Order: sequence, then structure tokens, then C-alpha cells
Amino acid sequence: MRYAVIMAGGSGERLWPLSTPERPKPFLKLLGERTLLQQTVDRLDGFIPLERTYVVVGAMHRELVARQLPDLPPENVLVEPVGRGTAACVGLAAAVIARTDPRAVMVVLPADHTIGDAPSFRDLLARADEIAASGTRLVTLGVTPDRPATGFGYIQAGPPFTPGDPSVLTVARFTEKPNEEAARAFIAGGDHFWNAGIFVWRVDAIRREIARHLPALDRGLSEIDAALGTKGAASTIARVYSGLEKVSIDVGVMEKAEACLVLPTGAIGWSDVGDFAALASLLPTDSAGNTVRGPHTGIDTADCLVLSGEGEGPRIATLGVTGLVIVQTPEAVLVIDKSRAQDLRDLAARQEAAHP
Amino acid sequence: MRYAVIMAGGSGERLWPLSTPERPKPFLKLLGERTLLQQTVDRLDGFIPLERTYVVVGAMHRELVARQLPDLPPENVLVEPVGRGTAACVGLAAAVIARTDPRAVMVVLPADHTIGDAPSFRDLLARADEIAASGTRLVTLGVTPDRPATGFGYIQAGPPFTPGDPSVLTVARFTEKPNEEAARAFIAGGDHFWNAGIFVWRVDAIRREIARHLPALDRGLSEIDAALGTKGAASTIARVYSGLEKVSIDVGVMEKAEACLVLPTGAIGWSDVGDFAALASLLPTDSAGNTVRGPHTGIDTADCLVLSGEGEGPRIATLGVTGLVIVQTPEAVLVIDKSRAQDLRDLAARQEAAHP
Repeated sequence: MRYAVIMAGGSGERLWPLSTPERPKPFLKLLGERTLLQQTVDRLDGFIPLERTYVVVGAMHRELVARQLPDLPPENVLVEPVGRGTAACVGLAAAVIARTDPRAVMVVLPADHTIGDAPSFRDLLARADEIAASGTRLVTLGVTPDRPATGFGYIQAGPPFTPGDPSVLTVARFTEKPNEEAARAFIAGGDHFWNAGIFVWRVDAIRREIARHLPALDRGLSEIDAALGTKGAASTIARVYSGLEKVSIDVGVMEKAEACLVLPTGAIGWSDVGDFAALASLLPTDSAGNTVRGPHTGIDTADCLVLSGEGEGPRIATLGVTGLVIVQTPEAVLVIDKSRAQDLRDLAARQEAAHP
Repeated sequence: MRYAVIMAGGSGERLWPLSTPERPKPFLKLLGERTLLQQTVDRLDGFIPLERTYVVVGAMHRELVARQLPDLPPENVLVEPVGRGTAACVGLAAAVIARTDPRAVMVVLPADHTIGDAPSFRDLLARADEIAASGTRLVTLGVTPDRPATGFGYIQAGPPFTPGDPSVLTVARFTEKPNEEAARAFIAGGDHFWNAGIFVWRVDAIRREIARHLPALDRGLSEIDAALGTKGAASTIARVYSGLEKVSIDVGVMEKAEACLVLPTGAIGWSDVGDFAALASLLPTDSAGNTVRGPHTGIDTADCLVLSGEGEGPRIATLGVTGLVIVQTPEAVLVIDKSRAQDLRDLAARQEAAHP
């Protein structure tokens, strides 16, 4: 059976002050009337039911998940006592699912990305499920890069898995965030994909790979296996988690595993909504190139992203400005040049240091 | 005796949203810890005492005057029932002062300007007082223009009043707000000054000129003369005012009067603080050319004016922006290019139309 494991992490520091530690990116309505988390669930509609959907979340955001996904069975919310990277997160979910379905296929999905073409996405997942279900393969989706981004991991594809069928490729190499020179070379080569953090594998297959490459995590998961279903489960998870090495599933397992395959996604409208420039590019604009949410009055204003809270707060008024991102929340008013959107993390950090 | 008549009008639409109909420009702390109205009074310290200082104000701002000038005798606040331009305002003040001192010299001062060099300013007023006290002369101060501003009235000077003494000049002509071509010609000619709306004259002299050039206003003032000191004074003022033609003292009297003189101010740091660009030029800047009031965090931010309320509201954060004015109040967040500061009135009007 298929299961979804949605990782409701992702701080979205480059979307501050919309995204805050109290209400990070997955829980924001960035692209419409539903939050990114809700959209991640919606995208699986008809493909994986809520009873087989798990959400892994930090303790402080448990309530947000419950509010935003009221129909999700409460036991399907897996709370991480502390963040220990995606390897631990994936391992915990695999352990929980394996108790009822030892050969389940789990689809791992970040809750802070968007995918425009949900039907094509489900078709891809169905194909990945088919491959993963048959055995030990670790299947990832590979997004065709459109720029030499240095913020993503890259997957270098090898020859097709089945000779003559380019829809499923073997994996030659994973590379974590490269420098720009390397990223340009990857794109020029044409055989690299962005690692979107979307994985499909059987729970027993990923546990076997964790055992091979992250033996300490495997020992911890075995303790959790034994405790699951008992009164001591939560305290065991808490104890085990706090002792784990913090590592991503990409670095800890995928880079070393030999059973990886990659499915090129083609044009499915994937975006990590990584910063305000990315957000602006995903939202409709008016005739002057502005995207506006909330009350705004503008004269000679072009190519701006203007976001303010509904209702109460002050209104935004602009005159003679171009290419700005202006965001107003009860916490802060942000004004940046859109071309500097990727540097916002520095500003948010400095802001936090100045006004903790 | 000398009397001050401070006209606490001036809406400051180009300083929106700092300046609002409820709390217009004279009542704002734009340049330090005292409001422009308070600074106008402070500037007369040792020159005209509060007992001989009158403030003319609209009914809705009477309380602001009382709060900001607690030591001003309450009877020295002259409330205009409706705004009818500066001619009526001056006439009313002249009528009130003449009751106790028929030959008083009144110094008329706008409360929404600033003057950096108060001692030199008082010296100028003393000289003007001396001239005005001796008879029928209407004395104005003339500010040397430093740019072809189209928002001010201009005074063309004639020959010196006393041959050989360029400190007091006769007046050839008043010109209301000229177009830019005319303004450039005025500056090139070297004989034009800005009319700063600062006048010194005897109350009987200005009444005589009003009688000559604005006979309807003179008739109204005569009714007020008769009512002053009686129970019916307020209702008489209200009735007379509502019937008056709305005209400025410049257009209604100065342009026509023959008794005008102008005292060039020289460099006394006069400014009408007319818009945010003017305000920025009057405030100290940091090493990056920014003027900041209120909580702000900035990276790569230069030549910006950043103003926010004290305490409660959101903080302002900027990244990669230059030459902006950013103002945050509970009503609005304003973001404009500083070079467009003079066009802010259009934006404030549109904002008001959109969100009345």
C-alpha cells in the first residue's frame, strides 16, 4: 500500500516576516487560499487517502497541523521532539508505517514546495510507486534546472534503468549545494537534475539502507520499533532523538546508496518558493507587473510584490518605485529590492539579533 | 507693543501619513522633540512673551494647541469656525489685538515652517518691528531662493527703502506660485525672494489696507469689532466667517498694497518642510546617508528616510534599497522614491478616495 509522509519542516527564513519561527513556511497561504501544507495534501487527492497520510512536525507546530488538517487522524501526526534532520524523520515514519504494513511504499514530500501540475505529478508518483513496490529501489524525482541555483542539491543521472526508456534513469551521483561554477557546469552538461527532496521507497528498503549507512540511527530506530504501541513510545522517541546525529537523508543515505533511481519530472511547475522573487514569479501580476495582496494604493509603481495582512494593519501606499518587495506584518515592515531576495536570510538574522 | 500671531494651519498633505487631517503638520515633532508649533513659539523666546502671543487655529485642533502650549493663556487661542484663508485669519487677530492695543505691531508667523538660526531671525523681526511701528508700512521677510520652486509665492524687490541700505527693500511685485520657466527667470534675475508668509505690521495699518482692498472682509471685521468682549462674540465670528470670501492675505492685500517692504533674510535656515525630501535634508544622516527614526534594521541601505512610530508598531527592515522614503504609522505604510516626494499629495488623495 502507498503511504504519504509529509515533512512539515522548512523555516522559510527568506520569506521573513511572513514566515516566522512561530508560523513557518508550510503553514502560510503563500499561493492561494490554502497553506503550502494543505496544498501538499490536496495534491495527493485520489492518490493517497488521509488515513495513510502522515505528517512529521516539530512539537511547537503540532497544533498548526491539527488546525490546518482537521480530517487527518491525530495518530498520523508524528511529532519530532527535536529536529534531527530528514534521515531521522524518514526513519521514524518508516518505523511507524512498518508496524502495520512492513512492505508499504512511502512517498516522502516536503510541505514547503509547490507543484503546479498535480495530475502529472501524481502520474510520476504512480510510476515511482510501481518501481519502488517491486523491491529495493530508492526512487527520487529530478527537476530539470532552469538556472544555476546554488541552493539545491543536484542529481547526476546515469543511463536509463531500462535500456531505451529515458523516463527512469539510474543515478550516477548526488551533489549537495554546489558553488556557482559547478552549478553552471551541471546545467551545461544536461545530465543533472535538482533534488526536490521527493522520494518513493519501500519502508523495508529504506530501513535496510539506513542500517547500512547510518548504523547509529538504525540502532535508535530499533529501540523505537520496540517501544511503538507501548506507553513508553513518546519517551523512547524523545530519548533516542536527542542522541541522534543530525543528518539529511540525502547526505546520510542517498549519496551512498547504490539502489537509487531518478524520474525526470519534466515541466510540472515545481518550485521551492524559496524567496520573495520566487513567490512573485508564481503569483499573477497586474498590467504594471505588480502582485498585490491586501490594501494598497500605488502611483507609478511597477514590478513590485506588495503583501500586507488582511483587515486591521496599516495600508501600503507606494509612489515612483520599481522592483521592490514590500511586506507588512504586525511584526515588521520589509522593503527590499527584489533582486536581493535571496539575501533576506541575513537581514532576518540581523533583525532577530537586534530585536530578539 | 509687539504681538505674535501664529497661524496654526497647513495640512502637510505631502507629509502623509505622518500628517493627517486629525493631526496636521504644525502639531508634529518633525524636527526634534518639539512640534513645529512649539518650535515657532520657542523661536520667539525673549522677544515676544506668551501673554502677547496669539494662535489662530481651526476648531478641530483647538485641543491640540491647548495640550502643546499649556502656558498660553486660553483667551489667546483664536478659533476659526471655518477656514477662510489667511486674510480673514489676519483680520480677526488684528481686531482682537486692537481692542487692547490699537497701535500694536503684530508679527504673523506660519506654524508649519522651520528656521534654523533663531537669533538672526529675531534680529530681523526686531528690525521689521522698528519699521512697522513707525507707521503704515507692511513688512515681509524675503527668503533667498536656492531653486526654481513652483510651490511658493515670489516677491520681486525694488530699490532700497533707504538709499544705500540693502537690508530693507521696496517691493516691486508679488507673484503667486509661478510656472517653472518663470521661476527660473526669477532666480536668474537675482531680485526675487520667496514669500515665507512672515509679516510684520501695525494692526491699524493692516486694517486700513484690508478696508481698501477687501471691503467685504472689512465690513465683517467691523461687526466682529462691535461684538468682541460681549457674550455674542463667538456667534458673531461664526456668522461673519461663514460668509467671507476665501482669500489669502498675499493675494487679497499684499499684491495690491503700495506700502510693502521686504527684508531679505539671508541664510537663516528657513524651510517650509514641504515634503519628505525637504524633511530628510533637515535631519542628520548616518554614514550611509540614511535618516532613521524608530526601530530599523538595514543592509545595503543608503540615502533613505526611514520613519516609524515609537514603541508598538512593526519594525522596518530594508535590504538593497537606495533613495527611498519609508514611513510607517498605524494608518499606512508609505514607500516612495525620494525624488517623487513633491507628488505625494496625489497619492494621499487617491488613498483617501480609495479608503475614506
